Amino acid sequence: TGISSLLANGVYTSAFPLHDVSIYIYDNTPLPLLYEEWASYSVFYKYQPIALIRKYYGEKVGLYFAWLGVYTQMLIPAAIVGVIVFLYGCATVDDNIPSMEICDPRNNITMCPLCDRVCGYWKLATACGTARASHLFDNPATVFFSVFMSLWAVLFMEHWKRRQVRLNYMWGMTDIGEEEEVRCHRCSKPCLKLCSGEKIKLTCTDRLPAYLTTVVTMAFLIAVTFAIVFGVILYRISIKTALHLSDYPAARYNVRAVVKTTAAIINLIVIIILDEIYGAIARWLTRLEVPKTDKSFEERLIFKTFILKFVNAFTPIVYLAFFRGRLVGRPGNYLYVVGSYRMEECAHGGCLMELCIQLCITMLGKQLIQNNLFEVGIPKLKKLLRRRKTESATKQAEELNKTLQRHEKDHILGPFVGLGPEYMEMIIQFGMVTLFVASFPLAPLFALLNNIIEIRLDAKKFVMELRRPIAVRAKDIGIWYKLLRGLSKVAVIVNAFVISFTSDFIPRLVYQYMYSNDGTMHGFINHSLAYFNVSDFQPDKEPNQSHYHGYKVEICRYKDYREPPWSSTPYELSKEFWAVLAARLAFVIVFQNVVMLMSDFVDWLIPGIPKDISLQLHKERVLMVELFMKEEKGKRLALQENRHKDSSSPFLTNQSPSQPRSRPSHGNWF
Amino acid sequence: TGISSLLANGVYTSAFPLHDVSIYIYDNTPLPLLYEEWASYSVFYKYQPIALIRKYYGEKVGLYFAWLGVYTQMLIPAAIVGVIVFLYGCATVDDNIPSMEICDPRNNITMCPLCDRVCGYWKLATACGTARASHLFDNPATVFFSVFMSLWAVLFMEHWKRRQVRLNYMWGMTDIGEEEEVRCHRCSKPCLKLCSGEKIKLTCTDRLPAYLTTVVTMAFLIAVTFAIVFGVILYRISIKTALHLSDYPAARYNVRAVVKTTAAIINLIVIIILDEIYGAIARWLTRLEVPKTDKSFEERLIFKTFILKFVNAFTPIVYLAFFRGRLVGRPGNYLYVVGSYRMEECAHGGCLMELCIQLCITMLGKQLIQNNLFEVGIPKLKKLLRRRKTESATKQAEELNKTLQRHEKDHILGPFVGLGPEYMEMIIQFGMVTLFVASFPLAPLFALLNNIIEIRLDAKKFVMELRRPIAVRAKDIGIWYKLLRGLSKVAVIVNAFVISFTSDFIPRLVYQYMYSNDGTMHGFINHSLAYFNVSDFQPDKEPNQSHYHGYKVEICRYKDYREPPWSSTPYELSKEFWAVLAARLAFVIVFQNVVMLMSDFVDWLIPGIPKDISLQLHKERVLMVELFMKEEKGKRLALQENRHKDSSSPFLTNQSPSQPRSRPSHGNWF
Repeated sequence: TGISSLLANGVYTSAFPLHDVSIYIYDNTPLPLLYEEWASYSVFYKYQPIALIRKYYGEKVGLYFAWLGVYTQMLIPAAIVGVIVFLYGCATVDDNIPSMEICDPRNNITMCPLCDRVCGYWKLATACGTARASHLFDNPATVFFSVFMSLWAVLFMEHWKRRQVRLNYMWGMTDIGEEEEVRCHRCSKPCLKLCSGEKIKLTCTDRLPAYLTTVVTMAFLIAVTFAIVFGVILYRISIKTALHLSDYPAARYNVRAVVKTTAAIINLIVIIILDEIYGAIARWLTRLEVPKTDKSFEERLIFKTFILKFVNAFTPIVYLAFFRGRLVGRPGNYLYVVGSYRMEECAHGGCLMELCIQLCITMLGKQLIQNNLFEVGIPKLKKLLRRRKTESATKQAEELNKTLQRHEKDHILGPFVGLGPEYMEMIIQFGMVTLFVASFPLAPLFALLNNIIEIRLDAKKFVMELRRPIAVRAKDIGIWYKLLRGLSKVAVIVNAFVISFTSDFIPRLVYQYMYSNDGTMHGFINHSLAYFNVSDFQPDKEPNQSHYHGYKVEICRYKDYREPPWSSTPYELSKEFWAVLAARLAFVIVFQNVVMLMSDFVDWLIPGIPKDISLQLHKERVLMVELFMKEEKGKRLALQENRHKDSSSPFLTNQSPSQPRSRPSHGNWF
Repeated sequence: TGISSLLANGVYTSAFPLHDVSIYIYDNTPLPLLYEEWASYSVFYKYQPIALIRKYYGEKVGLYFAWLGVYTQMLIPAAIVGVIVFLYGCATVDDNIPSMEICDPRNNITMCPLCDRVCGYWKLATACGTARASHLFDNPATVFFSVFMSLWAVLFMEHWKRRQVRLNYMWGMTDIGEEEEVRCHRCSKPCLKLCSGEKIKLTCTDRLPAYLTTVVTMAFLIAVTFAIVFGVILYRISIKTALHLSDYPAARYNVRAVVKTTAAIINLIVIIILDEIYGAIARWLTRLEVPKTDKSFEERLIFKTFILKFVNAFTPIVYLAFFRGRLVGRPGNYLYVVGSYRMEECAHGGCLMELCIQLCITMLGKQLIQNNLFEVGIPKLKKLLRRRKTESATKQAEELNKTLQRHEKDHILGPFVGLGPEYMEMIIQFGMVTLFVASFPLAPLFALLNNIIEIRLDAKKFVMELRRPIAVRAKDIGIWYKLLRGLSKVAVIVNAFVISFTSDFIPRLVYQYMYSNDGTMHGFINHSLAYFNVSDFQPDKEPNQSHYHGYKVEICRYKDYREPPWSSTPYELSKEFWAVLAARLAFVIVFQNVVMLMSDFVDWLIPGIPKDISLQLHKERVLMVELFMKEEKGKRLALQENRHKDSSSPFLTNQSPSQPRSRPSHGNWF
């Protein structure tokens, strides 16, 4: 702990291992082998030189890159199947009866206005584009794809487990136990006494305030995220109304696209900013808790950061997938929030499209901005600043710049802050790929393209921009594996809900098998729209234009399963609603249990340890036992001989048999 | 393999280790210590002497009894909570509004006949007793209890895992790998060549016929089970009709009780007989497959036996829980099977009661008959027969009977056939305790009482009735753990379905919160009964007596959610039906996911390895490394000494630098 306390007291500014000079060739390209074989975009199609990485950076970094490699490799089949599913959607878009019916101008359906007063009635045929587009993501192939992706996740976990065992074997880590070191070198000054030998045992009551702070702060931060997402919703509602008010028809025409895209971008920016803030807060909270060991510190930090970042990244998506368009009430009795904001409705198939746009922008934006700006831009900037500082300080020694000492050169590089952020980014991406894959089958492709760049980007960062990290041994990727496992479990149920509640898959099936006269989808659109008598509008909510294209509107339609105005219980939820709901719920149960069963089956089918490794381990164990036996035999013989030689020696006869001193070469004497 | 081939060729009739004579005291009570401390009913409240059992019978048997002990111990809290839940049901039976309404003679509800023609109309008030009884098992406490039992199952698994680690540590099994021996000694003669050194590699195509046979036979046997259960259903229907036809009012009065009980007993007898047959068939099938190792043989056999016995034991129960009373059609349009058998209906709450009776009889009967008859009676009988045989053969040496040799005495005892049947019995019991606990909260109590006897019974069998088994090492209980784990997973979903579909819990909730006028349960019975106009009966199915107690019946009621005859769509499923169905399915989803989440949480909360053991293991590892270092140092010193003695040796100077023999003391020289 000597160096840590000196560092903490500010005697030294930093301590780090140097990059290996002996294998330098050119001044500016350190580690030519790593550089050529790994940290270069031109080798993107090659496997990474994991053994080399491990040798240079230690097991922990090696495992990260091995994991990233396995993940990227596994994304290839997922991306291919995803693209096929998407293409299937494209190919069948013209055979899709519901969107044909929406686009058919003969189906002259007048829809109820989408906002109070300023919005007018509209023709369903104008939603033709959205309906056609939403078919791309809402077709039976999507159901297949989400089952596929759930199994893919299990296969990925199994594949990684096997790879890990193999790496452990190759790196000779099979017999290494968990090292639990008391956490010290991360201590801030006030807790330094913890490190100076005298271990202070913190009791539960000592820790309680810190835990309480954690829980309260986390709850508050999650509430902040929710509030911001809610704010974006209000923004979207008000902008929509404002644009409807404006007199420019061009503006009106593009209302939806503009609102959707700006809202998604605002969400993205908020996510990126909050991510940074929440990361810092999580670190502060974990430090408050004073965990006992380094491992515990890391796990707690990761867990907190994960929850915050996950909530942050997925709240807008979850809102779009499960709540948007569901809490709207009905014409004549809409739901209002914060005074007079009427909750948003979905156009036909509109929610799924918005979900896709949000997912697309979040994935692309997060990856582009966080990768390019934060991972490349900022380290480069920092390095530049640090170099300038050094330069200005040693202005007079400018000509010496080229002959800078190794430690000076490395000091210019950025410090290594741990693998947490790298893993976190990938886990969030894994979440996007598995959780909402039912609504966006192109997600694996996006992830694959990103990761191919990501690997080389990270490699470049490690080789060129960062000080060499202290090599740390590790048997596995630790808590990240548990998080992945948890995510892939949650993914099953989320996908079940997306398919049955967000998409129109189940209503279509129910219509086809329960209500359709001829067993086809003809008439589905008409069946899924309820009737509303415009005289039932509340007086102050009525649309300003009671006429539409010249004729007075008496009945308008809205997307819901409710009784018509002429029934004995007008606007109540209809029998169809409950039947469809029951079918949706039944689908969730069936989907979840079938996929879980299949996952367990795949898990059971693939042995956790590769056959050749387990054979090898068995052989080694047998060899070891044999060697041990031989040595023991040799020892015993040697002892006998010695006893013959100097049987008078009291030392030899008193030797305790439990601690024999073996001499390996003795065996050869006989 | 010498003895195995001699045994297979019939040179020897059997080979077994002898009971330990040295600790015999009396002639007829072997192993007095084991006998006094273990194999006696008088010590039922004590922990078993596991260390002693392991020492005498080996780890595998030790683990079985340890597991049985842990299971029995864990059943105590489950039984207590189960009894409390049952008592809660008893205490609240008089406050239960639905059963009060059924029993109230003022609610003069005429029900539709329960069978065609011969059955008459009946008053709902006559189902009063059943309704009151079913409240004992169908009340909100049951929901709590099934959540409790799901968590209990997880706790049990975790507790056992920890105990297993502790036992492994205590028995010094921590570092022992899996031993895979090529299966030999169970070979029948035709496959003996497999054992005689020349390993024949069976390819997939060689194995295909055996696998196909297995699949086909298993499917056939399962079909047989289904057919028998179906036969019992038909028996029940026809007996019911026959009893209705008879003129004795006393017979009629007891119709239901008699039919229920006889059917349950028939099912029980069939289960017990088929169990024996299926066990033999599973063994034959596994032998056909020629598994490579003994372990694989055992696992395959267990898996097959498990599936067959499980299907056998649970088919009648599953039928009663999920199908009985659901596939009946409706008055005027009943469902008929095999010609004119009308499927059974349930009286109000009747199905749950029958499920309870079936569970009760199966558990008690299986345990009593299989325990007493098969486990005690038959071994005793066999021993007697074997002794008589020996006696008759050596009639002339009767006076020598008392001085029989040890191996002769042991030969009279039954051979040890493995722990399979013992475990299987317990697993099926575990299934009864966890799978249908929602419908029968007394199951854990029954299991506990049985197991307290079972432990001592098994102990007595091992000490007195069986030849001493060959001691086998084992680290864990193997496939049984996986089966337990699988069962406890299935239990969650089965309980969810029992609560939401078999009991009236959800319909009651839906009524209370959606339809009730005053938020109470008043009117529930009326709401849950549909109307039927007796003029809609098919002509040949009409009841013979169209009058009931003097007045002509025009409308009768039946338990279903269907439209009344005067609606526009008479006898169609009503909106209430779909609403209740949706609620039931939603409950299943919520229940399953909440319980799974809680289970995972409990699983995560309890570390797999007890704290003290992991500390101890860590300490030992450190000690071992130290010892190794010390020994290496000693070796090196000895080598140095040798080198000083004969430094001219060319062998020492040629040492390769890649394998340097480091001398740790060198550092001190500079």
